Amino acid sequence: MVQEKAMPSEETLDPEDWESMRALGHRMVDDMLDDMKTIRERPVWQPTPDQVKAHFKRPVPLDPQPLEEIYEEFLENVLPYRRGNIHPRFWAWVVGTGTPLGVLAELLAASVNSANSRVEKQVIDWFKEVLGFPASASGLLTSGCSAANLIGLAVARNTKAGFDVRREGIQATPHKMVLYASQEIHMSIQKAVELLGLGSDALRLVPVNDDFQVDLEALKATIAQDRQDGHLPFCVVGAAGTTNTGAIDDLSALADVCLQENLWFHVDGAFGAWAALTPGARNQVAGMERADSLAFDLHKWMYMPKEIGCVLVRREEEHRKAFSLTPAYLARGEGGRGMTGGGLRNYGFQLSRGFRALKAWMSLKEHGIRKYGRLIQQNIDQARYLAELIDAAPELELAAPVTLNVVCFRYLRPGLGDAALNALNKEILVELQEQGIVVPSGTTIRGKYVLRVGHTNHRSRREDFDILVCEVIRIGKALSLS
Amino acid sequence: MVQEKAMPSEETLDPEDWESMRALGHRMVDDMLDDMKTIRERPVWQPTPDQVKAHFKRPVPLDPQPLEEIYEEFLENVLPYRRGNIHPRFWAWVVGTGTPLGVLAELLAASVNSANSRVEKQVIDWFKEVLGFPASASGLLTSGCSAANLIGLAVARNTKAGFDVRREGIQATPHKMVLYASQEIHMSIQKAVELLGLGSDALRLVPVNDDFQVDLEALKATIAQDRQDGHLPFCVVGAAGTTNTGAIDDLSALADVCLQENLWFHVDGAFGAWAALTPGARNQVAGMERADSLAFDLHKWMYMPKEIGCVLVRREEEHRKAFSLTPAYLARGEGGRGMTGGGLRNYGFQLSRGFRALKAWMSLKEHGIRKYGRLIQQNIDQARYLAELIDAAPELELAAPVTLNVVCFRYLRPGLGDAALNALNKEILVELQEQGIVVPSGTTIRGKYVLRVGHTNHRSRREDFDILVCEVIRIGKALSLS
Repeated sequence: MVQEKAMPSEETLDPEDWESMRALGHRMVDDMLDDMKTIRERPVWQPTPDQVKAHFKRPVPLDPQPLEEIYEEFLENVLPYRRGNIHPRFWAWVVGTGTPLGVLAELLAASVNSANSRVEKQVIDWFKEVLGFPASASGLLTSGCSAANLIGLAVARNTKAGFDVRREGIQATPHKMVLYASQEIHMSIQKAVELLGLGSDALRLVPVNDDFQVDLEALKATIAQDRQDGHLPFCVVGAAGTTNTGAIDDLSALADVCLQENLWFHVDGAFGAWAALTPGARNQVAGMERADSLAFDLHKWMYMPKEIGCVLVRREEEHRKAFSLTPAYLARGEGGRGMTGGGLRNYGFQLSRGFRALKAWMSLKEHGIRKYGRLIQQNIDQARYLAELIDAAPELELAAPVTLNVVCFRYLRPGLGDAALNALNKEILVELQEQGIVVPSGTTIRGKYVLRVGHTNHRSRREDFDILVCEVIRIGKALSLS
Repeated sequence: MVQEKAMPSEETLDPEDWESMRALGHRMVDDMLDDMKTIRERPVWQPTPDQVKAHFKRPVPLDPQPLEEIYEEFLENVLPYRRGNIHPRFWAWVVGTGTPLGVLAELLAASVNSANSRVEKQVIDWFKEVLGFPASASGLLTSGCSAANLIGLAVARNTKAGFDVRREGIQATPHKMVLYASQEIHMSIQKAVELLGLGSDALRLVPVNDDFQVDLEALKATIAQDRQDGHLPFCVVGAAGTTNTGAIDDLSALADVCLQENLWFHVDGAFGAWAALTPGARNQVAGMERADSLAFDLHKWMYMPKEIGCVLVRREEEHRKAFSLTPAYLARGEGGRGMTGGGLRNYGFQLSRGFRALKAWMSLKEHGIRKYGRLIQQNIDQARYLAELIDAAPELELAAPVTLNVVCFRYLRPGLGDAALNALNKEILVELQEQGIVVPSGTTIRGKYVLRVGHTNHRSRREDFDILVCEVIRIGKALSLS
């Protein structure tokens, strides 16, 4: 070939010394498994010292640094200052814990370095099977429930607009498109509505009842008013597990409303969808299987390492119609031979897609779906156990009914009004977190600042909740004295 | 505490036998590194046999399966039928190759199981530094360039609308918002425009010149016409490396147009942005550093395992204003103590975020930025080497100028017209892929179906391109005889 010229030597990013890389890999596996095995012995969380923070201000590395040195930096400056969510006493927000095989699966997935549509479709088929969706539904694994909600609402928007919204855009709508959710709905719904160009004022936030479920009469009245005002109601978003309190809307009733009103029924089931696996809470999510689209996570309940969420869409053609696009450089070879993708890119906005399906595939095989059902039930039972502890403690007060896995409560001190109690409970939360013993988060419910346990942790035991209650009371008393 | 009742025993997803898990982890590290080390010896790609496909039709596993068995399934039914992009002779589409340390970093990231904002911000600072963005710019790591383009265009839309588009939605626009890109722009721009509710007919696809760059006069004329028609031009999207041919728009000229016309300047630099690191191609992306927003990938050039892309936004407050939203359950503790996130969720639509920054952080330390520059230059030189081979072969014809890392060409057979040549080259591509020796992809350029090499592979050597040319000619001749 063109060999006459002097050719420069070629290099690669592969190591010259594969054995050192292998030794490092083995060390990482040992360290990470040891870390997970012994995590209970360490603080849940610790603040980052200033000298560690300063470490991350250095300019871009110009030249290579030895492998072992890089790893030591990770062990010293990164690992100890993580968020803490793999710890058995971490219950802040709703953050999953991960599992050892889930972690190892990510190693394999990165090695393969591309989505495998057969594995992904099988995993989605399993989700359809256990969540009551028809086999003909379509689905896509996503970075999480925010992306899944965005995709579900995009399909809803495009299907219900009554014109070609992909081509003409929202400004072509003759009537303002409006949708409905409870005041307790997750922020990702508003973010999706904004991104989709509908405007947050198109999202009608309907009041909730005493159980923090959407008020059905208020919902119907709002829809009627919108129709009277010449708007176009197109979608109801039901919550299967709100962030604040874990409340689950009456999904059967919402499905009925959507049927009567010809609205798209989307369910945000981030963690709560998985109540479907339990004997004790399955009935609470009845009606979810009637949704037009369902979004949920695998990295909250289901305990898989981040990032993995999923969206299911009841009618595949509506899903595909909202997202498919095939430029020349992606056109399939004729006759179906050659290399073809699985077409999953036609169900979302990502084109290059990693192999997040693998951890789901391996994890479901490792444990079987029945064990997931038992673990989720265990979390629900532990949340009730915590609620009983709180009920039994005169210093503590539950702020909302505990129907699933979220427990909101506050420390009381006689003689203090809500404003002072809010300040005290904020301080208690900071102390709990900074002392590294237990990590709940905080929220505000009907004007009261409360501690919030969002429990999707497969490592927690009842004794961990005993510790939580003791610590809140201990710190509450100490702060009251100071 | 509430100890009177008989309590059921509690279980966990952690293994009873940590040593077996550890042994499996070691085996996986060995297998994956061996696989990468010896990948050159195996076919680039192979079709999936029917019995393997059938394997993925089984129902959800109910009960646990032994670890070793699950891993054997992976080795037998998943690994051999991957897409092939880690192989030195894979150049289809623009798909990255990954590196051993990048793969191991994913193991660590999954163990930590949460984004670390300090690491992420440092990595983004490095990107700003080497791509010429000011230190005051904001940025976010994303699943890839599709998400990065979506975020960049969302900020553009919200900033330039002239009203509160987050609240009021696109239908409140008094003038149709329109934006501009070349006919060669990536499909993700259209997908983003559709998702954002602007409508694809708002995306004006401007003709290109002979070098497949946007035609500046045509662009200016289109903008003028739109203003005359009462529309609101708000953004120009420049391409730094088109998918079809690797063409880079005249970004300095586009920046000037945007300045004169008061338009947002977004650059889709999926792979081409990284030409900035090379001595030979740096000047081609001059002007990119003037963009208002810049989207690019790390899993194409930069060779990191999927998924990792990034968006930079010149003015942080515009970025934050487009996405920030803080509900009660995410409110910061007072005084800044306690656990606070790094606020990166305020720059995009994801809330739960994995630790994709770690592989970038470790990889940049492993090699130093200079080596990345050399490798990218090597890819560009290899693409030119391939172009010379094609020029020297009478059976082959280049379909577009080779300015960066994309080479489009076809096999010629005297006496055949374009339609017959298109069919012949499609057949050649299928044979190349199915025989597993080399894997380019195909596209259509000005009506001609061509083989397309999109080269972001750090494992390729010049000899691999010798093989490509030989094989295309061999198969082309064989097909012509049959």
